[in-house]
Amino acid sequence: MPSPSLRVAVVGATGLAGQQFLAALVRHPWMQVAKLAASERSAGKRYSQALQDPSGTSRWFVPEPLDSAIAELKVEDAREMSTAGLDLVFSAVESDAARELEPLYARHVPVISTASAFRYEPDVPVFLPGVNLDHAALIDRQRATRGWRGFVTPGPNCTTVGLALSLKPLDDRFGLRRVLMTSLQAASGAGRSPGVLALDVLDNVVPFIAKEEQKVEIETRKILGRLEQGVLRPHDAAVSATCTRVAVLDGHTESVFVALEKKASVAEAGQALREFGRDFVALGLPSCPAELIHVTDEPDRPQPRLDRDRGGGMTTTVGRLREDSALENGLKYVLVSHNTKLGAAKGAILMGEWLATKGYVG
Amino acid sequence: MPSPSLRVAVVGATGLAGQQFLAALVRHPWMQVAKLAASERSAGKRYSQALQDPSGTSRWFVPEPLDSAIAELKVEDAREMSTAGLDLVFSAVESDAARELEPLYARHVPVISTASAFRYEPDVPVFLPGVNLDHAALIDRQRATRGWRGFVTPGPNCTTVGLALSLKPLDDRFGLRRVLMTSLQAASGAGRSPGVLALDVLDNVVPFIAKEEQKVEIETRKILGRLEQGVLRPHDAAVSATCTRVAVLDGHTESVFVALEKKASVAEAGQALREFGRDFVALGLPSCPAELIHVTDEPDRPQPRLDRDRGGGMTTTVGRLREDSALENGLKYVLVSHNTKLGAAKGAILMGEWLATKGYVG
Amino acid sequence: MPSPSLRVAVVGATGLAGQQFLAALVRHPWMQVAKLAASERSAGKRYSQALQDPSGTSRWFVPEPLDSAIAELKVEDAREMSTAGLDLVFSAVESDAARELEPLYARHVPVISTASAFRYEPDVPVFLPGVNLDHAALIDRQRATRGWRGFVTPGPNCTTVGLALSLKPLDDRFGLRRVLMTSLQAASGAGRSPGVLALDVLDNVVPFIAKEEQKVEIETRKILGRLEQGVLRPHDAAVSATCTRVAVLDGHTESVFVALEKKASVAEAGQALREFGRDFVALGLPSCPAELIHVTDEPDRPQPRLDRDRGGGMTTTVGRLREDSALENGLKYVLVSHNTKLGAAKGAILMGEWLATKGYVG
Amino acid sequence: MPSPSLRVAVVGATGLAGQQFLAALVRHPWMQVAKLAASERSAGKRYSQALQDPSGTSRWFVPEPLDSAIAELKVEDAREMSTAGLDLVFSAVESDAARELEPLYARHVPVISTASAFRYEPDVPVFLPGVNLDHAALIDRQRATRGWRGFVTPGPNCTTVGLALSLKPLDDRFGLRRVLMTSLQAASGAGRSPGVLALDVLDNVVPFIAKEEQKVEIETRKILGRLEQGVLRPHDAAVSATCTRVAVLDGHTESVFVALEKKASVAEAGQALREFGRDFVALGLPSCPAELIHVTDEPDRPQPRLDRDRGGGMTTTVGRLREDSALENGLKYVLVSHNTKLGAAKGAILMGEWLATKGYVG
Repeated sequence: MPSPSLRVAVVGATGLAGQQFLAALVRHPWMQVAKLAASERSAGKRYSQALQDPSGTSRWFVPEPLDSAIAELKVEDAREMSTAGLDLVFSAVESDAARELEPLYARHVPVISTASAFRYEPDVPVFLPGVNLDHAALIDRQRATRGWRGFVTPGPNCTTVGLALSLKPLDDRFGLRRVLMTSLQAASGAGRSPGVLALDVLDNVVPFIAKEEQKVEIETRKILGRLEQGVLRPHDAAVSATCTRVAVLDGHTESVFVALEKKASVAEAGQALREFGRDFVALGLPSCPAELIHVTDEPDRPQPRLDRDRGGGMTTTVGRLREDSALENGLKYVLVSHNTKLGAAKGAILMGEWLATKGYVG
Repeated sequence: MPSPSLRVAVVGATGLAGQQFLAALVRHPWMQVAKLAASERSAGKRYSQALQDPSGTSRWFVPEPLDSAIAELKVEDAREMSTAGLDLVFSAVESDAARELEPLYARHVPVISTASAFRYEPDVPVFLPGVNLDHAALIDRQRATRGWRGFVTPGPNCTTVGLALSLKPLDDRFGLRRVLMTSLQAASGAGRSPGVLALDVLDNVVPFIAKEEQKVEIETRKILGRLEQGVLRPHDAAVSATCTRVAVLDGHTESVFVALEKKASVAEAGQALREFGRDFVALGLPSCPAELIHVTDEPDRPQPRLDRDRGGGMTTTVGRLREDSALENGLKYVLVSHNTKLGAAKGAILMGEWLATKGYVG
Repeated sequence: MPSPSLRVAVVGATGLAGQQFLAALVRHPWMQVAKLAASERSAGKRYSQALQDPSGTSRWFVPEPLDSAIAELKVEDAREMSTAGLDLVFSAVESDAARELEPLYARHVPVISTASAFRYEPDVPVFLPGVNLDHAALIDRQRATRGWRGFVTPGPNCTTVGLALSLKPLDDRFGLRRVLMTSLQAASGAGRSPGVLALDVLDNVVPFIAKEEQKVEIETRKILGRLEQGVLRPHDAAVSATCTRVAVLDGHTESVFVALEKKASVAEAGQALREFGRDFVALGLPSCPAELIHVTDEPDRPQPRLDRDRGGGMTTTVGRLREDSALENGLKYVLVSHNTKLGAAKGAILMGEWLATKGYVG
Repeated sequence: MPSPSLRVAVVGATGLAGQQFLAALVRHPWMQVAKLAASERSAGKRYSQALQDPSGTSRWFVPEPLDSAIAELKVEDAREMSTAGLDLVFSAVESDAARELEPLYARHVPVISTASAFRYEPDVPVFLPGVNLDHAALIDRQRATRGWRGFVTPGPNCTTVGLALSLKPLDDRFGLRRVLMTSLQAASGAGRSPGVLALDVLDNVVPFIAKEEQKVEIETRKILGRLEQGVLRPHDAAVSATCTRVAVLDGHTESVFVALEKKASVAEAGQALREFGRDFVALGLPSCPAELIHVTDEPDRPQPRLDRDRGGGMTTTVGRLREDSALENGLKYVLVSHNTKLGAAKGAILMGEWLATKGYVG
């Protein structure tokens, strides 16, 4: 892949998710940010201007500095943006906007999205790097059905990501029957509009995140599902989630109980998790970490603050792996994955890299 | 019961748990604090002096003001304290000290303890108000076996309390088969020596609390167990827990999944929970709340900050009651219970009240 | 004052500040809530309906339960609300709305407001209970100038309240020359729309609150000012503030340095603070605490979590009183006052009570 | 300076401050860790063993991984450690231990310390990089007085560091008369034994840190003082501090008010701060950041979470620079500096680097 030859657009560029895309694309070896789009309100302004709030504070919220070339780009109206000259669109808009905008682009070019709008359509794959790349066959079906030259592939919900990733090697080796998961989610998962108020989460836990549990339950089974004669059949395993919000900035923690088809010892399960994804890692994609799953034996890990940034936020850490006495062939563990890196923009970019190596993009 | 006629001692009086006993006993209608005991270091000092740290700061840590009469009491050496004239000893010491000290007192008088030292002995009941008062029959066995005039009854671990309480009505009506619980525990559960450091829990979750999961698993089955011919048989249900620490001051949150013997609808389960404990409440014990379990239908409750103080910290709040698709006859819910009130001193005092009405104390 | 004879309206009733008024007015001995008003969106709905959000969650955010009679009141459109039959209007709207709405009501009845809209007008007193009741003379001037039968009196900014209160006795006895204050403000001061995001304040301090420092500087001098021939002359003292936001739910902490005209020892200053407000307290107004200022000698107090609720949130706690070596006749201290009780609704209600005893209301 | 030729020891190596030294010395171009020392309890163990707690958890608390070569070093008893072959000792022990141990080493080699034990001795310089290197002349006096071949130079208290650094350029250009500072300090400043409890600082501010204010007041004047005929005369400026603890992990925030000899506009003061330290930076010392002071114009900065790591935690960020109306020639600003990097180990190492280039070390 020659140096930055893929021209990409980021739609929803002024929002927090859009900013995370821009931060992750700075100095990307294959991709260059060619266009930015946002709502009408920002259209026509330079990007740095579009970020200014009335009091003069910059609404650039990610810790990485804003790239000076990107700061100078003119923001286009997302409804009007032409895809001419683009190889790929990253969509970071809310779900309602995604439903309207993404098909506009997908008629012409591939769209990789963090929105949930198309996740539950039967001809739309929800890719998780290293897990279900065989679902790429759905892309052709999607193109045929919809008459698009491009396609839409949304990434999974940020809470699904670590869960599905950790379940995949267990399913492959031991067969998955039941999954019961309780999440302790970071505030950044809710973005900033309106986001999570300090008044709600300081000295507190909020045991509810709208629609989150259904997303996790449906997406996990879809991601782990099998293509049979071109149709994606969700995995049979039963998945049940309770999702909570805690006073953590970044990094979702998940307490997982699983029942397997075959008995697995802690050592066997640990080995399966450790060995997972080596082929995918060996592809050497620019955003891919050295290990998809890191297994820790330290008794009090993983912890979101200490483990979320492993592998540049792209490695999921699994710890406290134990046998579970309450389920048949039961295992339990705790995982931490970075909800705004692997679980959002950087995960989508990694997906774009893989699709590029396979000829779906570019 | 005539006005303050029960003379009680609080052992471990200078620690946080001991202070919680003293705060809860101020103006108690039946009990008066007759003696305070602590380690040798405090012995011989007035209580208010014993609390002073070298810089002059008072180490009285509970929000209620220190009662002036208690402040004047002289602290005795716990190893030397005579039980003469006492009707009851509340023990708030650490487990190692409890193993040594509690038998000294139990030879003569009843001891109600927050320590785990004796919880797992076959002749020791672990009472939970309204749940397993029939286990009182073990007291006679304990006295006979050990040759004591008094006895030891520890309260459950603070994480077990809300769990076992919420499981009891479900077990009674629908039969309990499996329990999978993830806790999000408050910092106060660890006390102050050493306690939970801000450096560990700010912007973080610690997914490990030493020995906690085993305590929950064993104690829950013991509390829900049955006496058969004088022997306590733990409940058959499988119980599995993952315990975590979050940045919350007080109030443990627990995400619970249960498999029942018989199918229960959400409405039926809610009714069972709501109706639970009415007979016990009707006894009108001084520390008993108006409802043992409060069931909420609000979609985002219970929350520890908003619900922990319900019923003076003595009511457990259950919410988010839903069917669970991953277990046979599955239900899931979230509960909040106050770990240092119902889960420690006030729970022990309520137990003492009940034992007094039954003639075991006084 | 006979039992609930004053009929009051709360405008902005659905917002957080409005809710705090309603919580504080339940079972008020003199006042009954006769009307509720809010924006057009809520108009015509029962109050409990108006609080419902689309997902069914109640947006009743204060910890006290919603009074069932108030829940049934119909919400009126604030622009259309008639003042007929009302004795007093409490206004809890944002400043822009206040500028438009408050004159509509003040033409007919007294308006006590938490908004800043009229605070800086020369004919508008900014009352602080026990501090500047002599400023009531401005009310007559305001009525005359504006041709109103009622009047507007806004309470001070929540950060000004504790500061001005603690400065008053020092000024009375020793004369005030300079004030340098750094605030550590609670998240609740920003309300909920948009409020303070967890993403901004967890593991962080935000050293800026828009317009806050100017408000504190101007209001403090106005409150401590003198009426000279009917004109309010701000106090000559120089006041300088730096305002920051910290991860605290309720209760503003302020670090204060003052230069006095006359040297005051720590003991003398403490005595002045302790003795302050006894005449006002002696009036026995329903919302008045037993002491306006509580002075603590404990080395590590006041702390917002431990001291904010003193006197039902109506007492300001002053501690760490020390001589200051960097200013002439310097003193320094730390104070905590409750920003949403004394600093908002309850403070406004106390003001209403005083105005009622003086015949300005009712 | 040839590649790692300076052999250094870290004393107090198992504590948090010691670990920060070790993390900062990994791959240092000039220094190699030749020895580790700690209390008797750890003596004789390999370093990785000495860190193990009874439950098997590693007590390595800094985020950087433990260097594998250092993990293998044997820990010596600090009381017995020979200085033979050492060029420099970094001492990270508590103050009481420092008073005893540091002279043992200083007889033979230079000792750079984070402890306060010797800070207030007249023949001991308290170096702040770029600020008071001329105080090095005291070293010769110290050697002569005490008959030592080495010497002791403690770094300043972590709260003094940012303050004195920001005051220096203002003093140089405009003359300093008064300083009034309120700190909002991070939990890491208190280390881990006992450290700051979550129970004390969640939803709270603690307005007291033992001895901190005196340290800041005395050290600031000492650092800014002048050598006159070999005697260090503290600066005349009056310095007054109020120190508080907030729920922040790392990074001290300070709100500063200063009165200057000469009027300085915001632009002039900003320029003085921006230009400060260029000569020192130009030396190119390995631990020196690109700017000692970064001045920001963004209205809501500096913030500890966003600014503490600037320049690898070695740059102090100053913002909110404004004229102050309450002091003669007054200025006010807010600063953030990293308390455990510039304010502790990395600051000490930078000092060591400078002393090496001047021939005091090595």
